Amino acid sequence: MTSVLPTAAVLVIGDEILSGRTRDSNSGHIAGFLTGIGIDLKEVRVVPDESDRIVEAVNALRARYTYVFTTGGIGPTHDDITADAIGLAFGVPVEHHPDAVAILREHYRTPEELTEARLRMARIPVGGTLVANPVSKAPGFRIGNVFVMAGVPKIMEAMLLNIEPQLEGGTRMLSETVDCPFGEGVIAERLGAIAKAHTDTVIGSYPTMGERTFSTKLVVRSRDPEALARAKAAIIDMIESVTRMKAGDGKPAAY
Amino acid sequence: MTSVLPTAAVLVIGDEILSGRTRDSNSGHIAGFLTGIGIDLKEVRVVPDESDRIVEAVNALRARYTYVFTTGGIGPTHDDITADAIGLAFGVPVEHHPDAVAILREHYRTPEELTEARLRMARIPVGGTLVANPVSKAPGFRIGNVFVMAGVPKIMEAMLLNIEPQLEGGTRMLSETVDCPFGEGVIAERLGAIAKAHTDTVIGSYPTMGERTFSTKLVVRSRDPEALARAKAAIIDMIESVTRMKAGDGKPAAY
Repeated sequence: MTSVLPTAAVLVIGDEILSGRTRDSNSGHIAGFLTGIGIDLKEVRVVPDESDRIVEAVNALRARYTYVFTTGGIGPTHDDITADAIGLAFGVPVEHHPDAVAILREHYRTPEELTEARLRMARIPVGGTLVANPVSKAPGFRIGNVFVMAGVPKIMEAMLLNIEPQLEGGTRMLSETVDCPFGEGVIAERLGAIAKAHTDTVIGSYPTMGERTFSTKLVVRSRDPEALARAKAAIIDMIESVTRMKAGDGKPAAY
Repeated sequence: MTSVLPTAAVLVIGDEILSGRTRDSNSGHIAGFLTGIGIDLKEVRVVPDESDRIVEAVNALRARYTYVFTTGGIGPTHDDITADAIGLAFGVPVEHHPDAVAILREHYRTPEELTEARLRMARIPVGGTLVANPVSKAPGFRIGNVFVMAGVPKIMEAMLLNIEPQLEGGTRMLSETVDCPFGEGVIAERLGAIAKAHTDTVIGSYPTMGERTFSTKLVVRSRDPEALARAKAAIIDMIESVTRMKAGDGKPAAY
């Protein structure tokens, strides 16, 4: 694998995730989405609703990866500080974006409904372009290589689909999973040898705990379908050979 | 709130999380656990099974927070590189720890069972102390302010309970949740004023999307029970006042 493949980071913004009150499902969703279009998610960070922490993380991540996706903190309340923090990170002011104001005006017809708090949701760092929100209208935005999305999962997922045409994907990472009835300790040495012999693939080993024994899921990943098939065949051969070896010894196959 | 409260970061290590294949539940579990014992979780990072990325993250986090908890990468296979990366981060060699070897020998009785791969799980950075693993025996470890745990959730959870006596908790953060039938846009200005008037609390606002409307969960957090009660009462008053105001206007309470 070369280093020219597009890479990405996810930045989850929100005290509620760090307190354990809310489980973050957005980063897992984005991970699957990016894998599907050939972009390597290389890092996830979760930071609190604190401006300096958001600024620091955005600047670290946008310098290092092709794309950065943030979730959370773009609503109308006092704890929604993401737009201002992104403005600080890019060194630009944050202003009411005329198109965003128009979208909100279309949705909230009277001045009584379009409160100052709601109008805050039209504040975008200067230079940013809008990301449509088909669910509840208040848009996300893109500035540079950073995409800023809502934290509510349904809204985030819809925004991500609207962002997709702007992303340059790479060659999609292919993967195959082989169920292995043995624990990692049984196969580790043989599997390590296979990994060494198949450097054009990445082989991961994920133990699953049953009632009394372990089994393992072996995941082979590669962008080259032939390399993938070769490594998968080697793993299946290895499992069959261990099965034959174990058949006679009367011991459980446990970890 | 003062800055002398203990803080923490979680470092999740694993390609399988970043590819979207596996959803990380460990960081959410640790978040709830730490909140319960008065330790502020301030950051979560997820990094791939790459030594330099683990080293960099461990060193950044251990310098900044009171405690760091890592999950993943301590099994017997070739992709389990956490112990070596932690050794690099601390600048110490990684060696077979005699107590860890003894634990494994007790569990895997014959040399045939105690393979070289399994013995790898007894390799601990020099200076580290063991964290017991009641589930599958191979221990985690602590070095400095870093606790290194398994990635399998049942094992991680058991290790965390064994770590608890070593942690110095702070005054526990208390929290109260008030269900608000209005969307954020309706209450944002009033809520912002309450947040400004109650600086000894942290007030978060979390929208929930129904079929056609939004409602909001308002979460007040404080380490001072009286401050918490005052802010909660102010929020309830505010919701009642908005309810009375809305009662006559015939419009839906939606976002």
